[in-house]
Amino acid sequence: MTVVTTVGLAVMDFVFGVDVRPDRGRKAFASSLAQVGGGPAATAAVTVAALGGIARFVGRIGEDPIGDHIMADLDRWHVDTGGIRRVPDASSPVSSIVVEPDGERTIVNYTDPRLHGPDDIVTAADLEGSDAVLVDMRWPVGSRSALVAATDLGVPSILDFDEAPEWDVAEALRLPNYVLFSAPALAGVTGSPDPEEALRRVAGRTAAWVGVTLGAEGMMWLDDGTMVRSPAYTVVAVDTLGAGDVYHGAFALGIAEGREIHDVVRRAAAVAALKCTRFGGREGIPSIEEVESFMEDRLGGNE
Amino acid sequence: MTVVTTVGLAVMDFVFGVDVRPDRGRKAFASSLAQVGGGPAATAAVTVAALGGIARFVGRIGEDPIGDHIMADLDRWHVDTGGIRRVPDASSPVSSIVVEPDGERTIVNYTDPRLHGPDDIVTAADLEGSDAVLVDMRWPVGSRSALVAATDLGVPSILDFDEAPEWDVAEALRLPNYVLFSAPALAGVTGSPDPEEALRRVAGRTAAWVGVTLGAEGMMWLDDGTMVRSPAYTVVAVDTLGAGDVYHGAFALGIAEGREIHDVVRRAAAVAALKCTRFGGREGIPSIEEVESFMEDRLGGNE
Repeated sequence: MTVVTTVGLAVMDFVFGVDVRPDRGRKAFASSLAQVGGGPAATAAVTVAALGGIARFVGRIGEDPIGDHIMADLDRWHVDTGGIRRVPDASSPVSSIVVEPDGERTIVNYTDPRLHGPDDIVTAADLEGSDAVLVDMRWPVGSRSALVAATDLGVPSILDFDEAPEWDVAEALRLPNYVLFSAPALAGVTGSPDPEEALRRVAGRTAAWVGVTLGAEGMMWLDDGTMVRSPAYTVVAVDTLGAGDVYHGAFALGIAEGREIHDVVRRAAAVAALKCTRFGGREGIPSIEEVESFMEDRLGGNE
Repeated sequence: MTVVTTVGLAVMDFVFGVDVRPDRGRKAFASSLAQVGGGPAATAAVTVAALGGIARFVGRIGEDPIGDHIMADLDRWHVDTGGIRRVPDASSPVSSIVVEPDGERTIVNYTDPRLHGPDDIVTAADLEGSDAVLVDMRWPVGSRSALVAATDLGVPSILDFDEAPEWDVAEALRLPNYVLFSAPALAGVTGSPDPEEALRRVAGRTAAWVGVTLGAEGMMWLDDGTMVRSPAYTVVAVDTLGAGDVYHGAFALGIAEGREIHDVVRRAAAVAALKCTRFGGREGIPSIEEVESFMEDRLGGNE
């Protein structure tokens, strides 16, 4: 079995469905509430487990009821939570996500700085036995140390590169083997709104493989100086919350399995596309059987 | 000891402190998060207990971790939770409250309709032994049945009359002995933005005592056809979240103790004013000793 360790943030998301977002200073009554586990690294770990891999999550949460709930949710998804430390007197991460009928999402996240002490690092012992390590940027000290430890162990490492002003960009480009940018983060780092131009620019600054995810536009990466575009699967998307995190989890599993990069990217696209066709957060993550049948179906001319 | 039973909503509030509220479709990182118990009737019950009364809360919450947290918080404040029923397969009420540096609050609340079944009523057995009953409008079936049961028992009843489109106004004015309006609710019911005119209008439609709270402007009520104005205490307010609920709790305790109405109103104003001078939700509710020393101090010429 293939082992993927993800390092970073686990969050409890409170997703409020509203007819109209309230004006500033006002009150709105939501028509629905979903309490779902979130966080880039944690949701990627759930994806790995849903796809049949062995998933470990390394992160920090509080010793509070929200933390209990985050733990229970990861347990339910068969994620190994042995790498989680509960920090006393700190709050677990929480997000309020207000979703309007057109799908527009407005998010407020709180991550307690007391969760992430300056000397609390991830070591080789946390990553031993992993076939790939995926880190997000929401626990800077943990993720940087995990990238260093992965290199020491010779385990391929993937950075989910999102907007994170507190990171040193040169370091973020130097430490991992694979850098997967979000489009806004890539534009922010390079100053170029054109993903192709931006990707070429950033490739000149790192020895890592670089790619950028573009949502419904698919993704783009540089293969030995050649720009490769991989379209997304065309689906009727009903819930895109967490789709990027699901993509990253599937990508990391593909790398861990030693697949060829075109195959890695294509499978990750299929996993994320299927997730978007279903309501309900982590419940919407497909199994490996569903992914393979979906890909075969689309290969058969239904793309 | 004096017993006050409150009937209505208990909520878990997630209070996010932000520099700027995020634009629609964007994400903001909060600089603080407070997880505090809320809900008009529940916070009023906590106030009664903090002031030395015996407080009972009657309401409905889910069998979920948020519900456990709501229960634990009420227990901590010595509120009798024997009147709470946990409803299986329903979510406990949750609010997201985004507070900006100027104190402006934007609220999204979710109250699961499955919590409040059409046949789930409050009976005389729930209210037996009470010296006063305070109800909010957020559990319509429960609050209406509680007002009827209070009348049957001969216990004075107080309605916290806030904006609630699902209530029949005539019924809301007929059932309680005391109706305490919020200013927006009174304007909505009467069509008049002037509280004095609105209060006179609404008094013609009910045999109940009627008053309206006006925040920092104090309150106003009709004493046998005469308009009485009671100013608020002048304080430096640092946290007004829940101040209205605290006022209602102190008001209900005063009625339960059989105090004269001028005294009831004055004490409730002191309790709410002191609460506003302190950060931290229910932690900011004063003790009876603090209230009495504050009132004496202000009587001594420091108002």
